[in-house]
Amino acid sequence: MIVQTNDTITALASATGAGAVAIIRVSGPKAFSIVNTIFSAKSKKSILTQGSHTIHLGHITDGHKVLDEVLVSLFKNPRSYTGEDVIEINCHGSSYIQQEILQLLLRKGCRMAEAGEFTLRAFLNAKMDLSQAEAVADLIASDSEAAHKIAIQQMRGGFSNEIKHLRDQLLNFASLLELELDFSEEDVEFADRTQFITLLSKIEIILKRLIDSFALGNVIKHGIPVSIVGAPNVGKSTLLNTLLNEERAIVSEIAGTTRDTVEDEISISGMRFRFIDTAGIRETKDKIESIGIEKTFEKISQAQVIIYLVDSSQLIVDTINLFKNEIAQIKNQHPLKPLIVIGNKADLLNDVQQQQLNSEIPELIFISAKQKSGIEQLTDRLLSFINDGSLRNDETIVTNSRHYDSLIKSLEEIQNVQAGMQSDLSGDLLAIDLREALFHLGSITGEVTNDELLGNIFSSFCIGK
Amino acid sequence: MIVQTNDTITALASATGAGAVAIIRVSGPKAFSIVNTIFSAKSKKSILTQGSHTIHLGHITDGHKVLDEVLVSLFKNPRSYTGEDVIEINCHGSSYIQQEILQLLLRKGCRMAEAGEFTLRAFLNAKMDLSQAEAVADLIASDSEAAHKIAIQQMRGGFSNEIKHLRDQLLNFASLLELELDFSEEDVEFADRTQFITLLSKIEIILKRLIDSFALGNVIKHGIPVSIVGAPNVGKSTLLNTLLNEERAIVSEIAGTTRDTVEDEISISGMRFRFIDTAGIRETKDKIESIGIEKTFEKISQAQVIIYLVDSSQLIVDTINLFKNEIAQIKNQHPLKPLIVIGNKADLLNDVQQQQLNSEIPELIFISAKQKSGIEQLTDRLLSFINDGSLRNDETIVTNSRHYDSLIKSLEEIQNVQAGMQSDLSGDLLAIDLREALFHLGSITGEVTNDELLGNIFSSFCIGK
Repeated sequence: MIVQTNDTITALASATGAGAVAIIRVSGPKAFSIVNTIFSAKSKKSILTQGSHTIHLGHITDGHKVLDEVLVSLFKNPRSYTGEDVIEINCHGSSYIQQEILQLLLRKGCRMAEAGEFTLRAFLNAKMDLSQAEAVADLIASDSEAAHKIAIQQMRGGFSNEIKHLRDQLLNFASLLELELDFSEEDVEFADRTQFITLLSKIEIILKRLIDSFALGNVIKHGIPVSIVGAPNVGKSTLLNTLLNEERAIVSEIAGTTRDTVEDEISISGMRFRFIDTAGIRETKDKIESIGIEKTFEKISQAQVIIYLVDSSQLIVDTINLFKNEIAQIKNQHPLKPLIVIGNKADLLNDVQQQQLNSEIPELIFISAKQKSGIEQLTDRLLSFINDGSLRNDETIVTNSRHYDSLIKSLEEIQNVQAGMQSDLSGDLLAIDLREALFHLGSITGEVTNDELLGNIFSSFCIGK
Repeated sequence: MIVQTNDTITALASATGAGAVAIIRVSGPKAFSIVNTIFSAKSKKSILTQGSHTIHLGHITDGHKVLDEVLVSLFKNPRSYTGEDVIEINCHGSSYIQQEILQLLLRKGCRMAEAGEFTLRAFLNAKMDLSQAEAVADLIASDSEAAHKIAIQQMRGGFSNEIKHLRDQLLNFASLLELELDFSEEDVEFADRTQFITLLSKIEIILKRLIDSFALGNVIKHGIPVSIVGAPNVGKSTLLNTLLNEERAIVSEIAGTTRDTVEDEISISGMRFRFIDTAGIRETKDKIESIGIEKTFEKISQAQVIIYLVDSSQLIVDTINLFKNEIAQIKNQHPLKPLIVIGNKADLLNDVQQQQLNSEIPELIFISAKQKSGIEQLTDRLLSFINDGSLRNDETIVTNSRHYDSLIKSLEEIQNVQAGMQSDLSGDLLAIDLREALFHLGSITGEVTNDELLGNIFSSFCIGK
């Protein structure tokens, strides 16, 4: 991507496919003059004479041919998403009309926008910083409450502000250090070393916390991989369907907005859980085979949470020891992975039988996937592993791997500066590490940037944003 | 559907799925008061104090939780699509955000709009007549230039105006006739019988033309069924792919708007062609069997145009007579169906050989599906069968089967009136037939209507329109 902003770009901004209405966005210096050649307002007034943030009904015409009756919304530089002159055309949502209008705009001098190019222009025109721009893409991709919450916090500047604040303080010391270098022969100290050491420790703690938050952020963004293991016919696919159906029931409340549900992903209290290797679960449904412990371990290695499912009605004297043995093996191999032990088909047991089993295996949770009982207990347990408070308060969570890399590099340089301070390193050498730290922190918000970096970031956006 | 218009409805108006931007539409008496409770403008000004056709940046909040940064567009009754107070919320296009905002609106007192309910309200508030409302659905569904042209003409009132004009003239005579009945004892004639007969003939001609146009209209709306017949390995599927690929190349010019192409449908110069039983074409690709003439006829019976494909490199003395015989049979059985005879693999023949074959079968068109030569000649022939001028001038074309039914019923009643006039039927009996004709004409534009009819029409719309 070559960053170029002197031309006028256009793209479909609403989702592709047919809907009632579609939005075609035009941004750039010629947005008004180009749209003016193809739009005739019902009021007969030219859009060139109209104010910003106004809406006008009229027709898009290609010569004598009327393409559509549309609404055009006018946004004048700098009061627009991109900071440029922007026009949004709301047309009827047929793919044919969308294409015809886009092709007409191209013939009249627009260029098709590249992925993320509207947001790139917003960044270049200082309507938002780089991490805010990246949050726009995250926001559009967000499919759970937690992911949405982080994205909107970041878009509103929460994360950027924290980074900018740190960087400003560091920049202040860096300037004083560089000033000392100018006066190096006089052996003065403008930068208060004690204050500086305190600041560095403070920054180190914050960077470490942000870096640590990435593990959670990553999980929130991509979902928590869960694997359901257990012998055939214990009810793995029934359990999965029960979990999926509960979500679908909520989702389908709103007709017309049923989202393209990714099979085997569910959202519980705003957290997304991804069930891995569920194809396997379904495959084994009709096969009679004992659970192979190697295969189980293979699945477990990819998961962050393990659900171990057993048919509790089959837990007689012989199998209960086998079962306890398997639990012990899993715990032994994966001491850090949360394990939820579930006794399915609990409806076939009476209370006394359940108590007996619980005395043998205290952690056993009884459910009936078929009758949908005990499911809440299971979802509560799933949530308990991530309810470390991070989502409840408003602490910043890093979800972007580019930010994560920059934070790690910043931390390294900060630690170099700290080490340098301890070993009484000279000011000019300290200044080098400090400049590196400033560079990496600045790259997060885009205070330091280059075309290649921008190209990488914005090419992952969708077209029209 | 119970027609109910005193509440406030909402729905997603843009296409479902994730895009850069989505539109949520709210219409009804409480549109402003409801949106006002969840929208806080960046300008701090309440939307209740803002003018129609203005746009405002701000946040949608659910209590303290910020759901999204959005633009709201205000349209005040009656200057809106529905004629009611309307607000459109342009939010970020994540499915999650769309749902959250919709659910919030429902909690605040909106109701989910049913299919077509916005347009139904537009009709009930006299923003458009019924045939214009139906054209909105056609416009959204239009996927070819011709279908789009008819829909937009109809939406702009072309068809309605013609019907209304006829009906008004007829209504005038009907009133005079009914007036005569009031003065029946005095034996007066207010309605000039000569003028009336002239009008009836004029209406008869126009109705017949409109009824006749339905065949073409239907073809334009649903595509022209074409069947490609021929022996295995003559290149039927290669030809189809060549035709499909040419269209796709055009479509994919505009990134991000690639439409969900229905396989085996192509658009040539704005007309849609539907290739029937193409599964069969692909199946037979690897089978060695002679073309069964019965199977061919079966395919042909469903088609409006027949492409008879032959491997021209195989047309030696023996087979050429078989081939001529088959052409003769097809023509004999289907004298009215256009037949295009194509010699494929023409790249394997030299000019002399082609001339020799043409002297035997003058109508043979040479192509090479593989090398994409001669294709334009084929598409020109396909178009020639419908280029009867109807699409070139601006004559009204009926595409809606409800209109078609009403037109036929109107014509019947008009012809009854004509017969009545000839046999000197009494005024009161004439008036009955005339009222029937008026009823059927009026049902097209919605001047005469009922809830059930409206329910049938609008339930076929998409949600959000």
